Amino acid sequence: MKKFLNSPDRLVDEALAGFVRAHSALVRSVPEQRLCVRADAPVAGKVALVSGGGSGHEPLHAGFVGPGMLDAACLGDVFTSPTVDQVLAAAQSVDGGAGVLFIVKNYTGDVINFRYAAELAQDEGIAVDVVIVDDDAATSPDAAAVGRRGTGATVFVEKIAGALAQGGAALDDVAAVARKTVERSRSIGVALTSCTTPMAGRPTFDLGADEIEFGVGIHGEAGVARRPHAAAASLVEDLATVLLAELEPPAGARLLVLVNGLGGTPAIELFLLHNEVCELLEARGLEVCRSLVGNFVTSLDMAGASISLLLLDDELTRLWDAPATTAALSRT
Amino acid sequence: MKKFLNSPDRLVDEALAGFVRAHSALVRSVPEQRLCVRADAPVAGKVALVSGGGSGHEPLHAGFVGPGMLDAACLGDVFTSPTVDQVLAAAQSVDGGAGVLFIVKNYTGDVINFRYAAELAQDEGIAVDVVIVDDDAATSPDAAAVGRRGTGATVFVEKIAGALAQGGAALDDVAAVARKTVERSRSIGVALTSCTTPMAGRPTFDLGADEIEFGVGIHGEAGVARRPHAAAASLVEDLATVLLAELEPPAGARLLVLVNGLGGTPAIELFLLHNEVCELLEARGLEVCRSLVGNFVTSLDMAGASISLLLLDDELTRLWDAPATTAALSRT
Repeated sequence: MKKFLNSPDRLVDEALAGFVRAHSALVRSVPEQRLCVRADAPVAGKVALVSGGGSGHEPLHAGFVGPGMLDAACLGDVFTSPTVDQVLAAAQSVDGGAGVLFIVKNYTGDVINFRYAAELAQDEGIAVDVVIVDDDAATSPDAAAVGRRGTGATVFVEKIAGALAQGGAALDDVAAVARKTVERSRSIGVALTSCTTPMAGRPTFDLGADEIEFGVGIHGEAGVARRPHAAAASLVEDLATVLLAELEPPAGARLLVLVNGLGGTPAIELFLLHNEVCELLEARGLEVCRSLVGNFVTSLDMAGASISLLLLDDELTRLWDAPATTAALSRT
Repeated sequence: MKKFLNSPDRLVDEALAGFVRAHSALVRSVPEQRLCVRADAPVAGKVALVSGGGSGHEPLHAGFVGPGMLDAACLGDVFTSPTVDQVLAAAQSVDGGAGVLFIVKNYTGDVINFRYAAELAQDEGIAVDVVIVDDDAATSPDAAAVGRRGTGATVFVEKIAGALAQGGAALDDVAAVARKTVERSRSIGVALTSCTTPMAGRPTFDLGADEIEFGVGIHGEAGVARRPHAAAASLVEDLATVLLAELEPPAGARLLVLVNGLGGTPAIELFLLHNEVCELLEARGLEVCRSLVGNFVTSLDMAGASISLLLLDDELTRLWDAPATTAALSRT
């Protein structure tokens, strides 16, 4: 394993320190709780947004802390849920009196810890709601009662709910728009290579020289099929077919498209993919109304990409376009 | 070779189309000349900035087209200079009557083609100046009369000269601040893996399982040494030692630090590197006054990173902080 690393057990803390050094005007850290918090938190009277999860998906979530998006991110170990204590500390740090929304990707450990922290915060008199993001169309909504995994649509939820909160809306309304965004989003990913976690030191799975993992999860979870690699146009058609079958957008629907790199894929390939996605959607009579291309929800060094679609309406478009200032996503 | 690709000879055109689709409010393309141009070009009375080079280094240069940075980028084939015709067409497209500055990374083909295009443009009555960026401290300034390679400092030059041009300065002044930025910048890179060009279909060079290329170029050119991999703190010390020996910053000097990913390195590792760079510079009595961490000047899918330093003064700091709106770098 060759990584830029001192020791696997110091990776998350050292990277958090480096992140805060690079963005000190925007965020501060609470190192003992591995929190990344808006520099000006708590913001009095504003609903606060807290997210988090395992590390290894950068820029998610710390890269989305700032005005117009998150108030705090809780950083777990690589691919490991943050603790109840961390999440509770985050809520206490950012509550400005209007309550806190937890935005949680649908993984068992994350859901348990964020829900328990919500109860503890409520016991202290902090109003909390919890929204679960479960957009991964490669997983069944009722598989073993666990449901779909949460992946790329997390960026949509954090931006859109963040904009409504920044505008002064109440907790119920912010939670409602977050849930609406989740319902109207689906994602699917494909891996060309595995990731390598610093703890394991070797690839999580092995792929043949011409094989891809179709429907891969952001921790290297198995997809729906291992299959031969194909030209981008063919691959995009297969990925989009899954998404459109789930979302069923009406003719002329307006879509937000995210073409997301999983960490080891060069930008030139992501833009080529985006071109294919747009051509396909337009050929199906759909409108690519907004788009975002780059590394947003990664899986360490995995070469691969995911595509996320959000069925826009006027409200969601307005909130997507609203001002935000974060390390990884800004709007003026 | 597994890449998101239809055919190697269509990669650059399809990626340019995808880039413009993703950023249509900001840029347009001239597809037959593979140009990416500011949507509102030419801007009357403003000195125009044109850069370009081989593709494979994204977001460089198209990602820096927009108000406050470049007016046009010329996209060559992967790792191949743009043609004289492309560069001339770019100058013609963006000249707003105040002249054009060509910002050129120091590679033989780029320098020849940009200089020749400058002569042709001047024959047409367009005032042109050419600034060569040669910041790679891993190469000798007089090696075979070719000089140092141009790498990460290109971002500094495009931002700083772009800000002065946006503010209405004359061509001579914009060229002068670009040259000053080059003189005060040095970079050095390290590769953990080779890149793989789509044409070759296999890695440009081979590295052992625990070997790194110290001082690698952004096209996979050999570095100053092939050596065993080391902990990040030790590696950063060796990289910084080279940069500081060349720049010789006085005690208390203010630095702009760029920790740049080469394409296949996850963000979490870049932030860890940035933390090491800051700790080292501060321990040497230097001030990390500004910083930038991410993928800016890449080498396709190469796992690796480069560090660039710019010795700031008040003028350069002000121009670095000035507003810019581009796909890859924005300031409000």
